[in-house]
Amino acid sequence: MSSERNPIVVMKFGGTSVGEVSRIKHVAEIVREHREKHPNVGVIVVLSAMAGETNKLVALAKSCVDRPNPREMDVLLASGEQITIALLAMRLIEGGIPAKSLLAQQAQISTTSDHTNALIESIDARQLVSLVDQGIVPVVAGFQGIDEQGDITTLGRGGSDITAVAIAAAVKAQTCFIYTDVPGVFSTDPRTCKSARLLERVCHEEMLEMASLGAKVLHTRSVYFAMRYQVPLVVLSTFEGPCNPGVNGTWIVSEDELMEKPVVTGVTYRTDEARIVVEGMSADIGKMSRLFSELSDKGIFIDMISQESVESGAVNVSVTVPDESSLVALETFQAIVEEVGALGVKIDRDIAKVSVVGIGMKYHTGVAARVFEALARERIGVTMINTSEIKMSVLVPRKYCEVAVRVLHDEFTEFNVTTGEER
Amino acid sequence: MSSERNPIVVMKFGGTSVGEVSRIKHVAEIVREHREKHPNVGVIVVLSAMAGETNKLVALAKSCVDRPNPREMDVLLASGEQITIALLAMRLIEGGIPAKSLLAQQAQISTTSDHTNALIESIDARQLVSLVDQGIVPVVAGFQGIDEQGDITTLGRGGSDITAVAIAAAVKAQTCFIYTDVPGVFSTDPRTCKSARLLERVCHEEMLEMASLGAKVLHTRSVYFAMRYQVPLVVLSTFEGPCNPGVNGTWIVSEDELMEKPVVTGVTYRTDEARIVVEGMSADIGKMSRLFSELSDKGIFIDMISQESVESGAVNVSVTVPDESSLVALETFQAIVEEVGALGVKIDRDIAKVSVVGIGMKYHTGVAARVFEALARERIGVTMINTSEIKMSVLVPRKYCEVAVRVLHDEFTEFNVTTGEER
Repeated sequence: MSSERNPIVVMKFGGTSVGEVSRIKHVAEIVREHREKHPNVGVIVVLSAMAGETNKLVALAKSCVDRPNPREMDVLLASGEQITIALLAMRLIEGGIPAKSLLAQQAQISTTSDHTNALIESIDARQLVSLVDQGIVPVVAGFQGIDEQGDITTLGRGGSDITAVAIAAAVKAQTCFIYTDVPGVFSTDPRTCKSARLLERVCHEEMLEMASLGAKVLHTRSVYFAMRYQVPLVVLSTFEGPCNPGVNGTWIVSEDELMEKPVVTGVTYRTDEARIVVEGMSADIGKMSRLFSELSDKGIFIDMISQESVESGAVNVSVTVPDESSLVALETFQAIVEEVGALGVKIDRDIAKVSVVGIGMKYHTGVAARVFEALARERIGVTMINTSEIKMSVLVPRKYCEVAVRVLHDEFTEFNVTTGEER
Repeated sequence: MSSERNPIVVMKFGGTSVGEVSRIKHVAEIVREHREKHPNVGVIVVLSAMAGETNKLVALAKSCVDRPNPREMDVLLASGEQITIALLAMRLIEGGIPAKSLLAQQAQISTTSDHTNALIESIDARQLVSLVDQGIVPVVAGFQGIDEQGDITTLGRGGSDITAVAIAAAVKAQTCFIYTDVPGVFSTDPRTCKSARLLERVCHEEMLEMASLGAKVLHTRSVYFAMRYQVPLVVLSTFEGPCNPGVNGTWIVSEDELMEKPVVTGVTYRTDEARIVVEGMSADIGKMSRLFSELSDKGIFIDMISQESVESGAVNVSVTVPDESSLVALETFQAIVEEVGALGVKIDRDIAKVSVVGIGMKYHTGVAARVFEALARERIGVTMINTSEIKMSVLVPRKYCEVAVRVLHDEFTEFNVTTGEER
């Protein structure tokens, strides 16, 4: 074998992209076009199950038992991708493109045995590369793996993205295309803010902040994976425009590949958290730690934390938690309010968290000042603040969420050098 | 390991037996009951896909391509059993019965590479037996196998029965129970003839004749397999009566295990054939062979053949073919009618084939005489006759089919020593 291998790209299509037969036919067209335009580039396809199929299988299991055994749940769930890969492979073959569907054990995707939430340990790329060398398109089942015992595992949320990125890393792919139902990553939610722009490039760190803050395009695990193994990722739409990137889609690259570093790349928000305030508590570290260990025992995630001094050495402690756990969190605090020497507990569910994200914040000062000035112009009060090296989040009343997003997006637009088309 | 192993039984449940979640729960009950009554007997379960699921998947493939690639078709179809085995295994586990679903590659079912119609070559029983030894119930996907390349194959019609019988042979099972939606094998169709009896025992040869003649209980391939590997088979209902045989079900045994050998065990019929007659053809072996090679070239199956001399050395040649191919067969003959020197071709689609089957026919004479006498009493004319060592078939006008079945069933009832309950 020559050491000069032809380049390979990985194309991953999500559940809505293969949600019905007409869409599977369209996916086959995208693969065909890519092969025609780039005859020397090998293609590996990774697919999700049809949109809704996984939920249907979960419902089936729940109607059969109260607590599905995780090993068996994985056997059940893995049947979803088996259907889509077979259909796409037959469609490609009928169109004259040699193709072969591969399940996890055939694609040699080895994982831990943590059923329903396994981690990929290794991929033996020889079989995949050998197929590509023969001009065959491997069509790989995403989301699933095989453990040491030969049992089927699944990778949990965002699993097919992770499969695609891991395969791209294993075969040293030129690019990993994540085809989805949106045109890429936007500077903010286009439904909230008309001036939202499609971003041409974001760096991994920005994408991680944006993904975990609510931009649902890519799961954080796959972004970590891409960052760690330096896989060039593109997020693009299955349904719009030509399949080649540049015209459509967002590249997710490493920081040093960004030619210019805007202070703020995007503005994100989420409205699914609630704020709980323990009032007039004595500022005792033991009592503080008691508060948080109680929440941790109940398995409740904490997002933001702040502490504010009030009179005579007492403090108000605020936390935000997922709205769905907020009543449990409230009761938990109420039960220990006397024990920690507090005056009372309050809950506020009408909140929104708005964040500005940008790798340029590492290098520029004054972002916080501009955030406050912009919000003040609209008389929007901020109740909590959280910052990281490349992000600043503020908590505002939910009714002002959209205004806050627009005003912050407009404030930083001048620095936003991305050239995505206006929508 | 001790050489004195606990006995093992194989239980196979068909598509209607696992057609919905409530039925899968019922199947789990049957397994539980068997284990309670026979705590020293290991159980291996083999399942089909949910009834209708395979047809749904075939329709999906056909909506995607005109001619589904067979390798990919097998990947698609095999997803059906994957769902049922996972659901049953989780149900058993929740009920406190250790269980593990196994796909073909896990159960080590090796087949030829004839996709959609593969033959089982071997089963490595060690994994199955080791699970049983640990008190675990293996729940195996029927209908599927794995070929030398590690590709998924399927076994074609009756595939899950074949899986069950092959596993029973490989683990040297005490019994292979085929659970289905009828209580067993009847002496004739209970819908046609009220005096039909559930047969307690039939031998393999009888079952083969009855299966290929239209009793839809068991596919002939699995009966062959059971005969060849001497697997004791029981056909019984998932839905009626207790699960232990003897009360319900038909044993399929080797001839020497039949204590008494009734002349006629069952009366079967089929109405899905048509008769074609080539009239006044010269009795020339070359021309005769021409007729049959033409049908063979078109892939048309021939069932009965007869030849009847008419005046001056000419003959009428009759064949029966599946009704669905009968018009093609008619045209084929019409196209060569002059070439073979015949006067014309006629078709009769209003026919029925009625057969009496019994291993005792090997040892008793006079069956043909009694068949003709019985039919004559009802003035039913016979147009064609076919016999084998244990079977006699007659062709009658379709409108007399049910009468012929009843009169033949009643004629031989006195010899029918089976003790199944009257229905």
